[in-house]
Amino acid sequence: MLRFACDYQEGAIPEIIERLTATNLESTPGYGKDDYCEEARRLIREACGAPDAAVHFFVGGTQTNSIVIHAMLAEYQGVISPASGHVTGHEAGAVESKGHKVLVVPQKDGKISGESVRACMRAYLADDSREHAVEPGLVYISHPTEHGTLYTKAELESIREACDEYGLPLFLDGARLGYGLAAEGTDVTLADIAALTDVFYIGGTKCGALFGEAVVIRDPKRLPRFFTTMKQNGAVLAKGRLLGLQFATLMENGTYERVCGHGVRLAQKLKQALVETGHTLFIDTPTNQIFVYLSAEEEKTLSKDFSFAVWNRDENGRALCRFVTSWATTEEAIDTLIAALKKGC
Amino acid sequence: MLRFACDYQEGAIPEIIERLTATNLESTPGYGKDDYCEEARRLIREACGAPDAAVHFFVGGTQTNSIVIHAMLAEYQGVISPASGHVTGHEAGAVESKGHKVLVVPQKDGKISGESVRACMRAYLADDSREHAVEPGLVYISHPTEHGTLYTKAELESIREACDEYGLPLFLDGARLGYGLAAEGTDVTLADIAALTDVFYIGGTKCGALFGEAVVIRDPKRLPRFFTTMKQNGAVLAKGRLLGLQFATLMENGTYERVCGHGVRLAQKLKQALVETGHTLFIDTPTNQIFVYLSAEEEKTLSKDFSFAVWNRDENGRALCRFVTSWATTEEAIDTLIAALKKGC
Amino acid sequence: MLRFACDYQEGAIPEIIERLTATNLESTPGYGKDDYCEEARRLIREACGAPDAAVHFFVGGTQTNSIVIHAMLAEYQGVISPASGHVTGHEAGAVESKGHKVLVVPQKDGKISGESVRACMRAYLADDSREHAVEPGLVYISHPTEHGTLYTKAELESIREACDEYGLPLFLDGARLGYGLAAEGTDVTLADIAALTDVFYIGGTKCGALFGEAVVIRDPKRLPRFFTTMKQNGAVLAKGRLLGLQFATLMENGTYERVCGHGVRLAQKLKQALVETGHTLFIDTPTNQIFVYLSAEEEKTLSKDFSFAVWNRDENGRALCRFVTSWATTEEAIDTLIAALKKGC
Amino acid sequence: MLRFACDYQEGAIPEIIERLTATNLESTPGYGKDDYCEEARRLIREACGAPDAAVHFFVGGTQTNSIVIHAMLAEYQGVISPASGHVTGHEAGAVESKGHKVLVVPQKDGKISGESVRACMRAYLADDSREHAVEPGLVYISHPTEHGTLYTKAELESIREACDEYGLPLFLDGARLGYGLAAEGTDVTLADIAALTDVFYIGGTKCGALFGEAVVIRDPKRLPRFFTTMKQNGAVLAKGRLLGLQFATLMENGTYERVCGHGVRLAQKLKQALVETGHTLFIDTPTNQIFVYLSAEEEKTLSKDFSFAVWNRDENGRALCRFVTSWATTEEAIDTLIAALKKGC
Repeated sequence: MLRFACDYQEGAIPEIIERLTATNLESTPGYGKDDYCEEARRLIREACGAPDAAVHFFVGGTQTNSIVIHAMLAEYQGVISPASGHVTGHEAGAVESKGHKVLVVPQKDGKISGESVRACMRAYLADDSREHAVEPGLVYISHPTEHGTLYTKAELESIREACDEYGLPLFLDGARLGYGLAAEGTDVTLADIAALTDVFYIGGTKCGALFGEAVVIRDPKRLPRFFTTMKQNGAVLAKGRLLGLQFATLMENGTYERVCGHGVRLAQKLKQALVETGHTLFIDTPTNQIFVYLSAEEEKTLSKDFSFAVWNRDENGRALCRFVTSWATTEEAIDTLIAALKKGC
Repeated sequence: MLRFACDYQEGAIPEIIERLTATNLESTPGYGKDDYCEEARRLIREACGAPDAAVHFFVGGTQTNSIVIHAMLAEYQGVISPASGHVTGHEAGAVESKGHKVLVVPQKDGKISGESVRACMRAYLADDSREHAVEPGLVYISHPTEHGTLYTKAELESIREACDEYGLPLFLDGARLGYGLAAEGTDVTLADIAALTDVFYIGGTKCGALFGEAVVIRDPKRLPRFFTTMKQNGAVLAKGRLLGLQFATLMENGTYERVCGHGVRLAQKLKQALVETGHTLFIDTPTNQIFVYLSAEEEKTLSKDFSFAVWNRDENGRALCRFVTSWATTEEAIDTLIAALKKGC
Repeated sequence: MLRFACDYQEGAIPEIIERLTATNLESTPGYGKDDYCEEARRLIREACGAPDAAVHFFVGGTQTNSIVIHAMLAEYQGVISPASGHVTGHEAGAVESKGHKVLVVPQKDGKISGESVRACMRAYLADDSREHAVEPGLVYISHPTEHGTLYTKAELESIREACDEYGLPLFLDGARLGYGLAAEGTDVTLADIAALTDVFYIGGTKCGALFGEAVVIRDPKRLPRFFTTMKQNGAVLAKGRLLGLQFATLMENGTYERVCGHGVRLAQKLKQALVETGHTLFIDTPTNQIFVYLSAEEEKTLSKDFSFAVWNRDENGRALCRFVTSWATTEEAIDTLIAALKKGC
Repeated sequence: MLRFACDYQEGAIPEIIERLTATNLESTPGYGKDDYCEEARRLIREACGAPDAAVHFFVGGTQTNSIVIHAMLAEYQGVISPASGHVTGHEAGAVESKGHKVLVVPQKDGKISGESVRACMRAYLADDSREHAVEPGLVYISHPTEHGTLYTKAELESIREACDEYGLPLFLDGARLGYGLAAEGTDVTLADIAALTDVFYIGGTKCGALFGEAVVIRDPKRLPRFFTTMKQNGAVLAKGRLLGLQFATLMENGTYERVCGHGVRLAQKLKQALVETGHTLFIDTPTNQIFVYLSAEEEKTLSKDFSFAVWNRDENGRALCRFVTSWATTEEAIDTLIAALKKGC
């Protein structure tokens, strides 16, 4: 079975495993007060061009999303999210469990726009009984999106502008950020994201680490005593150095974009093969997720040797399928999949 | 600097690092659906003599405590805890953040008794306005306790009996369980704990793993859809296999007790040296935490070369200090500390 | 200014004011343990044909909805609600503030159907990653709906059937229940509602009382220690007798339906006049809320002497307006409004 | 049966009932936007000497306490309360249900001091691991206290001073405030309380109203969008005018202190009789609550004709009893009770 179901099926890049092994018996303070975390913070601030940013390390994405969103909102506020946002459907109600409504706005190709934000705020402000409604208090987007697409720099600037018009902070979920930064043709850099958002995170779990997400807060005063908030929510890793060490490794010498670039290249190779074999893409994505329609027969045949996700099926049995590559996918695996596609399934 | 401040200063036992390395590029399903997790669950059920128990893997202790406690309680209930319980003071209000009051009962040497539980329930039931009060809904204890002490089997049975009288479930925090099981003279086994509690966990973070706590639920029907509860609280690790692999390693061939036994032996060696050098122990503990009073001068001198925790100081500057060993402490480190103590600090 | 903006603009029916006055200096126990509450409970159980039901008195609707919904759900569950449900948009995120997602399903004329429930459950169960999603745990409807419409008995039975298929309890928001029971042509009685739902409430605030909602729980074991839950949520009135006395008055001798019937009759008189004067109704409702389109000019003219709610305006300035009557509306007020409509605004 | 169990056993002062009756059919906007609420707000601001204060009306005390405390705290903060505080034991965990720990400090006669606050803060700040602890974020006191005692102005100033040293806001629960203001010998005025606290409330439920508490916020910017917070928590009364009308009545022409003064006078008369008949007071209180020890026989005899609260009993059966008077207690009732005491029970 060759697995293309997601990008968290393997361990970590070899450099991380090696460094974990080499430093295993070192004795350090806990809770992120160690030198590896400091090193990682320094490298992240440098890469972001944000010397004053606070950097906090989390273990996973749902944890990060719900705690950051909760900490950014007042109790009477909710978070604006695209209908396709990860926080709306795939996190078991984590945002609501901390007391906040997810205010869904329509998406296109997984993205919202400055105009989406403005329309939401206009509707809110036009409502005479808005005192009885949840106040929009934060905008949540992801990059790459759940649909594998990317914002352009101009699109992010437009969202930022709309946020500023209404005094809304902007939070960017970067669980797959590496695959976005490494995509061909993108004009969005890590420094752009750091400059255009209030909070965002650099995804580790899906991008080469065993686990971990690095949250970057442009103005640390926005989230005072955030360590205690994290602790209260069970999100402080005792051996914090494990996170520091991984991000120090990823952020050094362009490793992060390099290892994710590998995954993107293989996904694009697969995409081209799908097109060449006459398949219909659901959407043309530049990152590591490929969405394609397969006939019922194709799905059945391919499933024998390959794992992938089926998002839905229409009444004729045609399936919308997602294939995901990662830093760990091998050229051989992709070639085997492409060969199977060409053989006629 | 030799560190005795806590038992989460190093990485993991070499067997775990080796297995992580060896399996790093294997491709497995996420979220704990992999074979390593299954293997770990099987080994844990066997070791516990609890073939029907549910086993769930968490990343850390505060997360585990607050989620289990929340899931076990109705919204109108609180948790009975010793005044010294970890959940009362050192978890940043995690239990309260999920809506529940911690109902503190007096402790002795870090422990409560069946009678503590009965006294709490009698006081509750004697209160004519108890409809206006939080109902005790769960008993929380830890083994070893925050004071490094252990319950005897008879003491645990007595607590269990009191719980049964009042229909209260019992939750045991085993963050340092390995050091308890490996202590000389204890008559409490893993199977005893599994039989006498409703839920407990086998601590990994402090007991040889990089991180991880294995929650054992005797009757899985008690916590339906617990995976979703964990997900909602951001406690599901994407690469769940990392937890499975670590616990499979720890639970095999007595590794867990063996590596913790090493820490206990060194702590006891230190304790004996402290007594021999005329120090006053705060409490005589059989596990890996040693509590001793140091004069202001001793504390100052020792602090130059050794890290340890100071719990409090009296008006004369005498400090109540905690020294902790672990699976990773070396004989040399303990001998160096003992030599320093003997030299007269 | 004649007010048609809502049905909570006046005090209470004279019988209630008289009884409040007559009993003012009586001394009774607090918190609903008094004889008036007992009398009200007895009358409600009788009227519902539900001798074993628990009856609890709340002060207001948002409070009732959020507390009942929270108490009925496990932490990993959400509540199914029509998109037009009061809990989705007009309660400031009260349900979410207690930790639960509102699972919106499409509505037609303010109503959902058994098929709506089934479609929601089928989609949930068809989702391979539903462990990562909120589990539907309750169905919320209102009767009359937010659109002033009513379910037929057959429609309620069909929803009940769908609920039973999936083990879902059913909660009916009866904030305006009196206007539903008194509507011409309805085949739904109080006893039907008590038989077909798990929990519902008899609205007082909008239906003749100063304030108050009477929650009826068919099987009290469903919500154990519900008084404590209410207290914890600040929903127990110290002088509970005020609620008991009001509901005892409303439930006696058909008062509840009689006073609401007055409001319905006047609303229907208005509706007919609107049709006769050539206006377009948004929806044909049999209760005390009338929805009609007014031109920009009509809206402007009418606003001078009458208050009413504007739900939205289209690009031509045409306004969708809501006129509400109540037990307190006078025949003169309606006649004045009708005269103004006929005069050509 | 003559009732002295609490001060919420009767309805409201006649002036309120009369005004409710007289205005019953007036038609006003809902949710506190009416003229009665405006009038009450104006009278309260005047009486408090606080022209810029925000005034919000709640229905009951537990609701008020938990919502104000939640709104004043960040998620990582808890509230300092005397061990005898109403929020610690008698509100069913309402504060915790909104996510916050109650940080209990020792009390004397129901009171804390500036030094209590300082000691709590010093202990917090001295804790090296305070990042893992709940941050004290608010001080809660009540006046009169749960023990019926009063702060002096100097004592309140000292608490204020301590709060200012540590940047802590001060919240005063005034559920029985009228009985405090009307007590003989007190040097604390309403204006003092408004000047020395950040938030406090003027209790209505126990002080002459049917129900209601008026929250006064010195600096409204402290609690932005507080109406929405109230709505979210189900604490906005639809017919808000009922609250406005009651407080407008109470705050006019010294009515509030006058009617409470009646209750205080009768309580003091009872206290004197108890002393004269050789009873031992638990505490000498100047307000409307009298605490006295009764022998088992006295308790039994008195219970036949009088209701009162028993706080606890010692091993000899001696009971600590509380007798409460109110604006509604009659001279005859007190005289009957005194006669019974003198007759030798």
